[in-house]
Amino acid sequence: MSALPIDDFYCVIPAGGVGSRLWPLSRADAPKFLHDLTGSGTTLLRATWDRLAPLAGPQRVMVVTGRAHRAAVEAQIPALADENVVLESEPRDSTAAIGLAAAILEHRHPGVIIGSFAADHVIGNIPLFRAAVVEAVNAARAGYIATVGITPTEPAVGFGYIHVGTPLGIDDAASAKQVLSFVEKPDLKTARKYLHSGDYLWNASMFIAKASVLLEEIGRSNPELLAGLLELAAAWDDPATRGPAVDRIWPTLKKVALDYSVAEPAAAAGKLAVVPGHFSWDDVGDFASLTKLNSGGRATDLAILGENARVLSDASSGIVVSQTGRVISLIGIQNVVIVDTPDALLVTTSENAQRVKSVVEALRLTGSTEVL
Amino acid sequence: MSALPIDDFYCVIPAGGVGSRLWPLSRADAPKFLHDLTGSGTTLLRATWDRLAPLAGPQRVMVVTGRAHRAAVEAQIPALADENVVLESEPRDSTAAIGLAAAILEHRHPGVIIGSFAADHVIGNIPLFRAAVVEAVNAARAGYIATVGITPTEPAVGFGYIHVGTPLGIDDAASAKQVLSFVEKPDLKTARKYLHSGDYLWNASMFIAKASVLLEEIGRSNPELLAGLLELAAAWDDPATRGPAVDRIWPTLKKVALDYSVAEPAAAAGKLAVVPGHFSWDDVGDFASLTKLNSGGRATDLAILGENARVLSDASSGIVVSQTGRVISLIGIQNVVIVDTPDALLVTTSENAQRVKSVVEALRLTGSTEVL
Repeated sequence: MSALPIDDFYCVIPAGGVGSRLWPLSRADAPKFLHDLTGSGTTLLRATWDRLAPLAGPQRVMVVTGRAHRAAVEAQIPALADENVVLESEPRDSTAAIGLAAAILEHRHPGVIIGSFAADHVIGNIPLFRAAVVEAVNAARAGYIATVGITPTEPAVGFGYIHVGTPLGIDDAASAKQVLSFVEKPDLKTARKYLHSGDYLWNASMFIAKASVLLEEIGRSNPELLAGLLELAAAWDDPATRGPAVDRIWPTLKKVALDYSVAEPAAAAGKLAVVPGHFSWDDVGDFASLTKLNSGGRATDLAILGENARVLSDASSGIVVSQTGRVISLIGIQNVVIVDTPDALLVTTSENAQRVKSVVEALRLTGSTEVL
Repeated sequence: MSALPIDDFYCVIPAGGVGSRLWPLSRADAPKFLHDLTGSGTTLLRATWDRLAPLAGPQRVMVVTGRAHRAAVEAQIPALADENVVLESEPRDSTAAIGLAAAILEHRHPGVIIGSFAADHVIGNIPLFRAAVVEAVNAARAGYIATVGITPTEPAVGFGYIHVGTPLGIDDAASAKQVLSFVEKPDLKTARKYLHSGDYLWNASMFIAKASVLLEEIGRSNPELLAGLLELAAAWDDPATRGPAVDRIWPTLKKVALDYSVAEPAAAAGKLAVVPGHFSWDDVGDFASLTKLNSGGRATDLAILGENARVLSDASSGIVVSQTGRVISLIGIQNVVIVDTPDALLVTTSENAQRVKSVVEALRLTGSTEVL
């Protein structure tokens, strides 16, 4: 592996998204990335920083987050440079968030390579992660938009997949292959086919590219969005111009995920490379995922999250997330999901984990927004 | 029916027992009888008083309870006469509690008839209840120890049964029959046999007898216990003698249930009469019972208990008892029992309702006594 930190490389951490499927643990004012979901004692955001800072250098990690989370983000990452905190006045999806970071960094450091990594994923085996990123950066230097795809370990239906083609023969990126296409979350039958074929990787939303290449791709699919991002970037580093530019432009930017604005069209155009990652990875999308992550793979155990948890379990399995000091007693209840917070309690099962989002919608509709 | 109140008749309400199977709703400092378990707005104790006061007259209802519950009991029943509050320094089971009341009342009013009724049962159709008690009082006047047995509506395994014999032909107690025996909680097969035979009634722990007859029966099985009760009763109404007598005698009294000390031997001796009660009755022994009681018989519904309950249920059934103002969300969970209190949370299923008691034991053993 090349020496770290990598030259001319910036990491971008888009820290947005509430994680509705993890309600009431994840809230508007305490989103998923601000939680410790593995019992490690570290929030997901901080763990992401700890993974990335050695790759780019601590002065070259940028966080894009909502204004409301500024204080929490800075408390989690005291080393984060002021100029590397990009605050959104309102969420406008990942193309605007990552595109703005790309535009600002390209404006400051023409020719820079950026890597975007979600703030709220869980990754094991950091050396393998870093090795994959180093290869992806080398693919980016060769002009590709590179992603790191995760080698599937099961026929997951909760993730998108990357259909992998032939090796690209890039110098110092020996395992980089062509991306044939991105595919949406499959059904179980299709997921099994993907797993057995060996031709599919999980899409972990990691994108590594020259900022200029990423912006060019955004411009191809969304020229007005690109124009707005470039205008914002040009105004960004002058305190006199940033505020007015944000107020005028940000609310007009199209809301679109980077998967649609960049990844799919770039794959179709043959510009996308993928480096297989052999480390464990999870986007912790719901409580079923959280349960699995914390149960060490044993389906019969009860996982417990929470520093002050006082759980008494008799013949029960699943997960208890305790944010209160209350005694929690479970008797004879299987695959349960219990999230105990000071103002809201969720009781469901792993099988119903995907339906948590609908509860959040119902609470919004019934005006119980104070618990969202 | 004779005119109410009934002459020479006192009601006794033993208000003891924590109701461990209803933890964490029922606690040492807030036992079952101090709760509203039906959403009626009335505690079980108050509802018991409301049923009994017209039968005996409000000046002739005695409550036997623990010292710790004196204030709560008096708050529930402001009309309760001071002389009718009998405080136990520590619980010594039902023979001591009811026997002491019988001894005090016999000492004050020789020849009195007493009826003992649990403080924490739920009864429907009060006119039918009162009619049964009136018949039982008439059987007691004829010298019997009378009980009111409940006509079973299902093969319940959580109740004891009374094996009924032939009619006794007592004046003004036309439906009173001989009790052949008391039988313990049966298994399901036996319970079905009992139900179909028509010869069995549920034992609702209601005993109506001349106080002197009841005391005599206690003395037959437990002469030392009777001697202690008589000594206590003789000392009771003099403030100078009550305290020392209680301190000296009460802790020495044998702990034995009235079913064993009186009901079973009296039945064996042919002294026990039973009047069938055709009203609905439940001892609310556990959360399965509580669920049934509050679901109106519909097994697919979610019953909710708690004045300030904020429950959002999606395809769930069972019961939620809410003592906090927290939002409680349930998704796709069946026959669940959730009890949400400020310092303890229970999550189980109806099928495991009987095991709640073991949790209480475990909490005691692990030193978490502050939530018991």
